[in-house]
Amino acid sequence: VLRFQELSQEFNSYFNKKHFPDHPETLYDAASYMLEEGGKRIRPVLCLMGNELFGPIHPDAWKTAASLELFHNFTLIHDDIMDHAPLRRGKPTVHAKYNESTALLAGDVMLLQAYEVLNETDPKNVRSLIRLLNKTGREVCEGQQLDMDFEKMDHITLEQYMGMIELKTAVFLAASLQMGALIAGAPMVQQEHIYAFGRNLGLAFQVQDDWLDAFGDSSTFGKQKGGDILANKKTFLLVKMLEASGQPQKQEIMELAMYQGPDKVERMTNIYLASGIDDSAQAAKKNYMDQAFIHLEAITVPVENKKALKDLAEYLLERES
Amino acid sequence: VLRFQELSQEFNSYFNKKHFPDHPETLYDAASYMLEEGGKRIRPVLCLMGNELFGPIHPDAWKTAASLELFHNFTLIHDDIMDHAPLRRGKPTVHAKYNESTALLAGDVMLLQAYEVLNETDPKNVRSLIRLLNKTGREVCEGQQLDMDFEKMDHITLEQYMGMIELKTAVFLAASLQMGALIAGAPMVQQEHIYAFGRNLGLAFQVQDDWLDAFGDSSTFGKQKGGDILANKKTFLLVKMLEASGQPQKQEIMELAMYQGPDKVERMTNIYLASGIDDSAQAAKKNYMDQAFIHLEAITVPVENKKALKDLAEYLLERES
Repeated sequence: VLRFQELSQEFNSYFNKKHFPDHPETLYDAASYMLEEGGKRIRPVLCLMGNELFGPIHPDAWKTAASLELFHNFTLIHDDIMDHAPLRRGKPTVHAKYNESTALLAGDVMLLQAYEVLNETDPKNVRSLIRLLNKTGREVCEGQQLDMDFEKMDHITLEQYMGMIELKTAVFLAASLQMGALIAGAPMVQQEHIYAFGRNLGLAFQVQDDWLDAFGDSSTFGKQKGGDILANKKTFLLVKMLEASGQPQKQEIMELAMYQGPDKVERMTNIYLASGIDDSAQAAKKNYMDQAFIHLEAITVPVENKKALKDLAEYLLERES
Repeated sequence: VLRFQELSQEFNSYFNKKHFPDHPETLYDAASYMLEEGGKRIRPVLCLMGNELFGPIHPDAWKTAASLELFHNFTLIHDDIMDHAPLRRGKPTVHAKYNESTALLAGDVMLLQAYEVLNETDPKNVRSLIRLLNKTGREVCEGQQLDMDFEKMDHITLEQYMGMIELKTAVFLAASLQMGALIAGAPMVQQEHIYAFGRNLGLAFQVQDDWLDAFGDSSTFGKQKGGDILANKKTFLLVKMLEASGQPQKQEIMELAMYQGPDKVERMTNIYLASGIDDSAQAAKKNYMDQAFIHLEAITVPVENKKALKDLAEYLLERES
């Protein structure tokens, strides 16, 4: 069993408690609903692992992990409102189960609670931790705004796409690791390496996710295969494809976007394969992974301390689903 | 000229600067738009006055004042989304000018910025200030939720109504004053008195506001006279009236709620007058004011230090508009 999975279970035990008052229940039921048996707990576990990299886990790492999970759930509630998403983790989203106004407020109190928990850490670190949460939170909001902007644009570059992914996803993973290192008292240069490890891991993860949608094993892949293609979603594959295409092929792809026949996914996948876009994605993923490992190497702790993070990276990025 | 007005001007000079980065402008234009020439700046000025009550204004009081104004604007942006309000301060609301998703995110980054600014105060006080902002923010969200819940309910008691007003409005005024006192190093018991002063002032202010809607001088009153009556909004007057009425009169009021003729406001106002509800409102206001002044009296600073707050309270509560 991976250290990641052990810590995920331990975190669930720690986090499985009452986070909000009882009244008004119209507000706090919605907030609590969001926290029920939720998700992979990647961010809090990264915080714990970033801390354990430098020694035994400090109690403040647990508090910070909880704060990060609360913060993550704040972003999810608000994102789901913006995306009009009906389901999350197979259950109705907060705004679908309650209503948009209550979901908006439930997100707000979730964010306030993230600060409340973080504010209870050692005064020695609290301002640095809050500053990092503020910066990362701002970037996540920027990423969400860019994601919405890009959906309305005909053409974006691969650089723009990866820049958006960096803000929306990667920096939060990076900051989670850095907070753990910060609590451990790691020097700033070590904190920067673990941040860069997380950032590159996040980028690799997203490229992998985009690749899996088109090329993953549909029997084990959790989502509908080709879901991104059916929704004409901008992914690494589509953006890269359009960037590499001449006018005739661009035309073909635009026409396929309008098309909603049963072989849409197959046709699009074949275009990707014929142009070697699947290889480009794998190469990009490998490049981000290599970068991640260079930064992990550079951290001056015993090599056995790095095993948990190495195992996690390989687990996340070799998954077929 | 009142000290309140001087400080309001000084605060505007201090606050009139760039609060956000340039990019993505789709997000930060919306956030900056909200802060343009906005409002009476009551909360930041209360913070400054709460600080000045105990001595010369401390630089951290200015930072905290800015944080409170950012926080207040976060609540306004989100409230306007929930209330589907088209206008604020005579201009299109953020979601009306941009869109709901951008407004939601603009509110979120405004809240993050409030913490960022507050986090730059002296480490000696920063955790106490953040804790108080967290608590107050949670209460404001609870008040907004209760306000929405109450709109859907046939009957609420005056106690429920004032409890909602306390959360939605009064505690934030109270906390603004307390933060100023906290920064001045005032002992906790003094902080509690200034908090109680602000809380009672806020309650008196809301009763006054409800009274003005029906009985204010329409030539000087900023809003449409009888706006609350036309919208069948629950106010101190309506809630008190329904609580004091027997079944026949309740029936009459319910029927008037359905009625949308040109004399609706006049008919409702006459019912209030016939039942002495206007006097009840004035008595309630006076009671809250008396309570406020008892707490102001109890603060052990030279009486001349209290003049600014006394003048402000009288100015706010003797206004005809």
